[in-house]
Amino acid sequence: MTSTPIADLWPTLPGADTRPEAAYRLLQAAVESFAERGFHATTTRDIATAAGMSPAALYIHYQSKAALLAEISQAGHTATLALVRAAAAGDGGPAQRMRRMVEQFTAWHARARTVGRVVNYELHALPEDAYAVVAALRLDIEREVSALIEAGAAAGEFEVAEVRTAARAVTSLGIDVSRWYTERSSETPEELGRRYGDLVLRMLGARV
Amino acid sequence: MTSTPIADLWPTLPGADTRPEAAYRLLQAAVESFAERGFHATTTRDIATAAGMSPAALYIHYQSKAALLAEISQAGHTATLALVRAAAAGDGGPAQRMRRMVEQFTAWHARARTVGRVVNYELHALPEDAYAVVAALRLDIEREVSALIEAGAAAGEFEVAEVRTAARAVTSLGIDVSRWYTERSSETPEELGRRYGDLVLRMLGARV
Repeated sequence: MTSTPIADLWPTLPGADTRPEAAYRLLQAAVESFAERGFHATTTRDIATAAGMSPAALYIHYQSKAALLAEISQAGHTATLALVRAAAAGDGGPAQRMRRMVEQFTAWHARARTVGRVVNYELHALPEDAYAVVAALRLDIEREVSALIEAGAAAGEFEVAEVRTAARAVTSLGIDVSRWYTERSSETPEELGRRYGDLVLRMLGARV
Repeated sequence: MTSTPIADLWPTLPGADTRPEAAYRLLQAAVESFAERGFHATTTRDIATAAGMSPAALYIHYQSKAALLAEISQAGHTATLALVRAAAAGDGGPAQRMRRMVEQFTAWHARARTVGRVVNYELHALPEDAYAVVAALRLDIEREVSALIEAGAAAGEFEVAEVRTAARAVTSLGIDVSRWYTERSSETPEELGRRYGDLVLRMLGARV
């Protein structure tokens, strides 16, 4: 099973429905090039070539490779924040919602691992304004996770010594899946999500 | 607090005691360059310049930047395997030894985060023979963690559904510390290690 194509991650971005197909091809080519060689070693020519276009054609859609990275990073973070928010606002008590959150966050990082790598390991290459946007999205993700842990503790469903450290561990486990998960992994993204859901609930002191 | 200097991680490598000081300077410069810009975007000239040497002087010690990466990667993995083995062979029952293993593995990845990033995120840039050596070391680390989980389950101290997934989660939590830990983090490496020790023991179903 190959990694999720970029177009599936894009619906949350403004203007996604009117975006020309060439822009998706460029984003896809950029994700693959950045993941394989790193942002700094990738040229706009590499990206254009991989998308079957000329460098001049790339510049019609994006001013620079940094603009591509900014859009990829913003889209990836917007998608995971949406998923975390939906789980937090779902049915059931805090433990049930946390289980769903971890299942989906984990499965996303397994399926969209190529995007996940770029989004998490090339943060420092972002231009300053794009970094500010992404940092705010990351903070929102962390806050959703922390708030759900606090709700669980208040409801007597969790028992946690340090909410911030626990929230960090929860997101960290999911993010790191992008690093190690491959198409040869023995668990499907959904199986891994369920197992990580069990492990996280225990970590939070829930009786499972 | 800055990241651990490279020389502190080198004692486990063959020939470490007779290595010229210039080699350490090159390794340190290579770690910093690879961590900042990625392996592919770093030239041997960048490394030599950062070490205060000429490219010609670099070649006296290393044939290529890949040879530097191979040595860094081998040293990092040798150091973490040694630490994991020492904890596994230490005093006390499986839960006590697991706690010590997680504390030290976590603190190492916080302290030596720059090396940790290079070692974990540039694996695919390794030449084939060096990759084989490092892959074997990684497998040994995973086996030590799995064996300790199995010993804990056999002794009735742990209760684990899937040993492999649990072992993966334990190492993953520690490795990902290299990504997010900074000198501005509010916890010291040792505090973080203790908190992660608590979380992991819970994850393994130990009564703590």
